[in-house]
Amino acid sequence: MPHTPHAPGALMIIGGGEDRTDNKEILARFIALAGGPERQLVVLTAASKIPEVVWETYRVALHDLGARNVRHVPIGERVDADDAAKADIVAGASGIFMTGGDQKRLVAHIGGTAVEQAMRDAHALRGACIAGTSAGASAMCTHMLAEGKAELAPEKGAVRLGAGLGFVHRVVVDQHFSQRRRLHRLLSVVAQTPFLLGAGIDEDTALIVHGRAGFEVMGEGTVTVLDCRSAKTNIADLRAGAVPTLVGVGLHLLPSGAAFAAPPDPAARAGAPLPAIGQLPEGAAPAPRALADFLAFLTDRNDES
Amino acid sequence: MPHTPHAPGALMIIGGGEDRTDNKEILARFIALAGGPERQLVVLTAASKIPEVVWETYRVALHDLGARNVRHVPIGERVDADDAAKADIVAGASGIFMTGGDQKRLVAHIGGTAVEQAMRDAHALRGACIAGTSAGASAMCTHMLAEGKAELAPEKGAVRLGAGLGFVHRVVVDQHFSQRRRLHRLLSVVAQTPFLLGAGIDEDTALIVHGRAGFEVMGEGTVTVLDCRSAKTNIADLRAGAVPTLVGVGLHLLPSGAAFAAPPDPAARAGAPLPAIGQLPEGAAPAPRALADFLAFLTDRNDES
Repeated sequence: MPHTPHAPGALMIIGGGEDRTDNKEILARFIALAGGPERQLVVLTAASKIPEVVWETYRVALHDLGARNVRHVPIGERVDADDAAKADIVAGASGIFMTGGDQKRLVAHIGGTAVEQAMRDAHALRGACIAGTSAGASAMCTHMLAEGKAELAPEKGAVRLGAGLGFVHRVVVDQHFSQRRRLHRLLSVVAQTPFLLGAGIDEDTALIVHGRAGFEVMGEGTVTVLDCRSAKTNIADLRAGAVPTLVGVGLHLLPSGAAFAAPPDPAARAGAPLPAIGQLPEGAAPAPRALADFLAFLTDRNDES
Repeated sequence: MPHTPHAPGALMIIGGGEDRTDNKEILARFIALAGGPERQLVVLTAASKIPEVVWETYRVALHDLGARNVRHVPIGERVDADDAAKADIVAGASGIFMTGGDQKRLVAHIGGTAVEQAMRDAHALRGACIAGTSAGASAMCTHMLAEGKAELAPEKGAVRLGAGLGFVHRVVVDQHFSQRRRLHRLLSVVAQTPFLLGAGIDEDTALIVHGRAGFEVMGEGTVTVLDCRSAKTNIADLRAGAVPTLVGVGLHLLPSGAAFAAPPDPAARAGAPLPAIGQLPEGAAPAPRALADFLAFLTDRNDES
């Protein structure tokens, strides 16, 4: 498939619980990736049942960090997300932050609406940074981990997928990962659907995708990547609720500071504009072979391999 | 190295918390692997600070299961473990069960003593079943996970190894694995020492090694195997306490019923007696390639590869 030249902005996939009162490291990075404190920032609280409370937290935190143009776009029902004035605000933003709550509520309210299209355009055409934390992180995937529990072992059928917003393909995200012991929940997904790589993101930790350039991890915790594509499993033969045998799962553990650069971008070589913002840190290395596809999927290069 | 013909008994490596009052599935299997309820069974409480309390629990449980010849061999200090009468009891046993407590205490009291030699002889020469739960499980390894914590991420230097009893080589065991969230603790060990494969055993779950024939998993939980031999990591360059990057860790998750058969045993072909007890379940499959070395190490075949 030929590439349309574009300059996608950064994606910040945050594992929930990012600091909002102390060092606010991740929120500061969000402002930077949006282009700085003068830019228009938007907070989407559509995942939350207490949107005004959540908004107040982010309003104060972002203000403390110097952001001058922050707007709340409240979306209480789906019709709000097709409101032209709201969509215009989102379309003009340089940074769009989706808060926590319930990812099913979030995608039910904004999936396929004018606001979602405005997010997509802002990201793809103008390089806006799209951030999501907790439910907002899960919702960024095409195939979204919607709900389910598997605490002490993976279980067939324990987890439901849903249709997410589609900023990340072929990767399924889980959040609050180490804190809520979600290894087995995410294994339940990737064991059943090896097509998807799993990315488990700890609290106060962000997986940052720099457009087509690469990705990095920042924050207090780690990102755990699970790859079941080469695993041997009996899951297809099990009843629902049974624990599968899994042999040969690839596990990668990426702490803060891990950064990997994608190969040179054919689209960029063809004269497409470089992303003006969201640069990968210096020192980002090529990905080891075991991580190459994860990098390719995140940076949307999988149609080149 | 040529093999001395022998008929090693089974090893039961139990993740702690095995049921002692209800179905007692694992303890029943211990009796069976020792040859049945008429055989001499020995309980070693040397890991525990409350040996009489622990002994009473096992006395009742094993009695309820029909065992008629169960003896407690109390070892309160190292001199007890060199007592000839105690060593004779152990040497004559068909099943030897090491309880929980502190694995450092256990190996300090019995490592290199007459009792330890008696265990080794009973296992190697007469096919006695050696079982260990919790601390008793950890102590079965040559390289024993002695102590340490790493809760939310692996950490360089977080875990100390010690010299264990040496029934299992090139595999390091951790117990209470999923219940106590020990993935990162065991990753800390194998990231630093990829020579060792990690085996994390859940509560009320046993990894059973059937001499040189193969292994199986039984019980309520799973056995998690970690293999860092092919992983890329920066751990050598980190300060103590830092979180390593790990790319390409092999993870295997084996639930109850998983059973793998080792290749035909050259020693057996040479006319050595087959183990009289502790047979591998029918239907045990050859190990998938990713698990082949784990199987070889457990069944002490690594000098053949």
